[in-house]
Parts: sequence; C-alpha cells; structure tokens
Amino acid sequence: MSIAKTPKPPYYAVIFTSIKNAENTEYETISEKMVELVQKQPGFLGFESAKEEIGITVSYWESLEAIQLWNNNLAHQEAQKLGKEKFYQSFKVRISKVERDYSF
Amino acid sequence: MSIAKTPKPPYYAVIFTSIKNAENTEYETISEKMVELVQKQPGFLGFESAKEEIGITVSYWESLEAIQLWNNNLAHQEAQKLGKEKFYQSFKVRISKVERDYSF
Repeated sequence: MSIAKTPKPPYYAVIFTSIKNAENTEYETISEKMVELVQKQPGFLGFESAKEEIGITVSYWESLEAIQLWNNNLAHQEAQKLGKEKFYQSFKVRISKVERDYSF
Repeated sequence: MSIAKTPKPPYYAVIFTSIKNAENTEYETISEKMVELVQKQPGFLGFESAKEEIGITVSYWESLEAIQLWNNNLAHQEAQKLGKEKFYQSFKVRISKVERDYSF
C-alpha cells in the first residue's frame, strides 16, 4: 500500500468508512477479489486503505460515470450485499470531487 | 474513533494520506494537540483516521474558507513544519467537495 499516484485535479474520490463485525473468513477472499476487479475498471485511478478501529478506503476515479459503472458491476453488487449482511456493522460512503491537491 | 456524523452534503473533505518516518516521540504530543485544537475551529465537522502501512486522515469542513482558516492557524503551521522536517517521509493532501453520501 502506498500513496495513490493520481492525475492533476479535478477527479473524484469515494471515501468509504466502515466498522466491521467480528472477523469473517469470507471477508478477506471477497476483499482481495474486489481489489483485483476494481483495477480493471475503466476510469479507476487508484486507492488507499488503512484500518484500525475504523477502516478507511479511498478510491479515486476519473468521473462520476466511472464510479457508477463500478457500482453496477455484478460481482461488486454481490460483495456489497455480503457487506451489509455479514461484514459491516456500519459504513458510510461519501462521493467527492477533488478540486486541489499537493504533496510532499 | 467512530464514523464522523456529517451533515447533508455539500460539505468539504480534506483527505490527508501519509507515510511516516520511524517513530518520533514528539509526534504523539503534537498530534493530540492538533486533534484538540481542530475541534475548536469554526466550520469543522469531524474527522476519521486509521493507520497501517499508510495513514489516512479525513477531516470534514463546512467550507473552503474554514479549511483555509485552519491552515492559517499558527500552531497548525508549526505542526505542519515539524511534519515535513521530522514526522513524514511523504504525504499527499487532497481537498474535495462531498457531493453525495449514504450510510448503512
């Protein structure tokens, strides 16, 4: 995991914050599959992820249409369903437009 | 740490992703002080933070002006200076406008 190399703004960030239920062995498998799949999505720019008490995953996208396409992906929809049923106690998704960035 | 209770969009998110140098004892002190100070800032809505290989801290704000005010805070500027000199190997700051959110 490293800091995502994103292009010059504007682009989009999906901020996914979650609190998981007790470990579910299925979670790692599904999670790895999603990481593999998302990288093949058109308009996907990269992601960053870290987990302590809460998990934060930020994925970066060229456009709202690209985010929508990924949401419509059938394997992703199945994973989202499992997420609600089994993996997450609660989560929040924020869709945002990156207007400015700088790095060091 | 819990999922931040933010108002209905639009609002702003500052996504701060970082890779730290080896532990610096000063870091925790400065970090706690910043958490204390930021909560007194006008327009501050909450934050979320998690750290594994990379650290991700997302802070939420009412407006770009509120973000700017916090950047101009002298104690915060001093902390940013220490961050560059001592704490971080690299970091990236992305300023984004949350257009939509949903939760479970």
